[in-house]
Amino acid sequence: MIILIPLQLLDTIFNFFNIMISQPTIKPYVIGLDLGGTNSVFGIVDSRGDIKATTAIKTQAYNNVDDYVNASIEALQIIIDQVGGIGKIKAMGIGAPNANYYKGTIEYAPNIAWGHECCVPLADMFSKKLGIPVAITNDANAAAIGEMTYGVARGMKNFIVLTLGTGVGSGIVINGQLVYGCDGFAGELGHVIMRRENGRSCGCGRTGCLEAYCSATGVARTAREFLATTDTPSVLREMKPEDITSLDVSIAAGKGDELAKRVYDFTGEMLGEACADFAAFSSPEAFIFFGGLTKAGDLIMDPIKKSYDEHVMNVFKGKAQFLISGLDGSSAAVLGASAIGWDIQEEAK
Amino acid sequence: MIILIPLQLLDTIFNFFNIMISQPTIKPYVIGLDLGGTNSVFGIVDSRGDIKATTAIKTQAYNNVDDYVNASIEALQIIIDQVGGIGKIKAMGIGAPNANYYKGTIEYAPNIAWGHECCVPLADMFSKKLGIPVAITNDANAAAIGEMTYGVARGMKNFIVLTLGTGVGSGIVINGQLVYGCDGFAGELGHVIMRRENGRSCGCGRTGCLEAYCSATGVARTAREFLATTDTPSVLREMKPEDITSLDVSIAAGKGDELAKRVYDFTGEMLGEACADFAAFSSPEAFIFFGGLTKAGDLIMDPIKKSYDEHVMNVFKGKAQFLISGLDGSSAAVLGASAIGWDIQEEAK
Repeated sequence: MIILIPLQLLDTIFNFFNIMISQPTIKPYVIGLDLGGTNSVFGIVDSRGDIKATTAIKTQAYNNVDDYVNASIEALQIIIDQVGGIGKIKAMGIGAPNANYYKGTIEYAPNIAWGHECCVPLADMFSKKLGIPVAITNDANAAAIGEMTYGVARGMKNFIVLTLGTGVGSGIVINGQLVYGCDGFAGELGHVIMRRENGRSCGCGRTGCLEAYCSATGVARTAREFLATTDTPSVLREMKPEDITSLDVSIAAGKGDELAKRVYDFTGEMLGEACADFAAFSSPEAFIFFGGLTKAGDLIMDPIKKSYDEHVMNVFKGKAQFLISGLDGSSAAVLGASAIGWDIQEEAK
Repeated sequence: MIILIPLQLLDTIFNFFNIMISQPTIKPYVIGLDLGGTNSVFGIVDSRGDIKATTAIKTQAYNNVDDYVNASIEALQIIIDQVGGIGKIKAMGIGAPNANYYKGTIEYAPNIAWGHECCVPLADMFSKKLGIPVAITNDANAAAIGEMTYGVARGMKNFIVLTLGTGVGSGIVINGQLVYGCDGFAGELGHVIMRRENGRSCGCGRTGCLEAYCSATGVARTAREFLATTDTPSVLREMKPEDITSLDVSIAAGKGDELAKRVYDFTGEMLGEACADFAAFSSPEAFIFFGGLTKAGDLIMDPIKKSYDEHVMNVFKGKAQFLISGLDGSSAAVLGASAIGWDIQEEAK
């Protein structure tokens, strides 16, 4: 049977299919990967920061980056299918130690078996396997983009995120853009020098860095110093000094322990002084604190604010807010990583 | 007499005039104003940084901002006519103390008789009189834009200009944009704290600021301290301590004076340490030094570079250049101010 179609109708049909084909597919999700030395946690996230599906593999289980990427893809495929397939996913963001945003690589990462050397092109490897754009940045930068996308920095153009964890990291946003510098490694505010004489040794090989005092390990070290050099009574005296962690200090301070509170006063005072210097650089509208130490709440935030007000230049007084991260702790790193995905077309090469 | 024009020809004539009218006029110049406490120097500058005409008035001669602007316009009119009229001029840039870029104002400028109060809307006042866009920023920011437009930072996207004059100022460029922060006052790197204990008092009311050591007055102060606390022989001992200026130190050092050279070593060492901290912030591709102290050349630049290499984090080593301003000293401030004019349509509100 031959169907006769008038030319005009044929045209209409063609146009219809043309529109169907050229219409951009709606891609409501991004993948976030929080790549740590121990675990790699994946999440598929929507634009409101809701994690739709999640999975994880052991980073440590792979000595070879190809095996690591293959295992990742295998685990990812299951959750990608759960949300409707790769066609629903716009991009992938990776938050990882020693990440070079410009090159998409991990460089000399001491805690990753397959990351010791320069340079693992992880973004490209994932991008080729998944067929979507992939960007990579360090954890603190991911946290900053996470705050701007889903957290307390929504709508802000100039702010600094300080991550107070095992180390002190930072993500700096100026004019609405993350600061990567000439090499992709800008924003190492944990390594400005706070004590130029007799400073504590720092993991970076120098002495007197902010991180040596204001990281979780720095806080435990301060507690040990105060226990050794004062006779202030403290429940921490019941512990072996080498066993004391920042969590112990936090619990003790929460119960009103005098020495533990002095440890937070000392830590907050130094953070406030450091922030006063950072204000002289970029005059941010907010400093946002992220990571384990922020669980101490006002015990750490009050001395930070007090010290900042005492030390900052008059012209900057009263202009910056001091905030605790708005991202849920357990999923914050995955959210931060995923947030890079939304920016990828504007920013990535 | 009536001339009959065919309709088609009329159309052609109309189109011709239409093109003439809608064609944007070529505006090859910008006005730069270097507004100092004593003098106000105006220049009309082309896109290559050649100053086509220049004039000046005494800032100090006016107690009232209206009188100041009227006198400025009167002086300007002569050089505007010299270059072909206001139609040739795209915009005006002003470099001034206590300038707020966002608001176009001068705020609480202690050294300007009509600038003591908040807020003199100088950009608007000039803009209304001249009928062109006008932007205002502080001297160090103007220097940074000047370097990017006409100087050694052409083509750079991430660099820091440090102005070593009576004070220490800075202009920071990140991702090709000047850093103004949330309030227009970012980039006060002369006021990061370099000595947290027993620091020298600073004009900002605090102690230990970089400016208290590495400005021209800081250098003279260091010389006086070294003369008082050491017995190193020096030609500077022939002067009254209170008469010693940074120029005297520079001349002495140029002749091989041991104490004067130690003053530059001390100054350069501190600047290098400060730059190492700045690298941790924005990882610039260059630090550019501007102002009186740079006349000492290698005497100051060598210790800066040596100290930077000793103090900077490993990841940043060898990445930043250390440069002296490429702008001609006598006209640098006018050139810097004028350079703001070229950016005005993209950046100003």
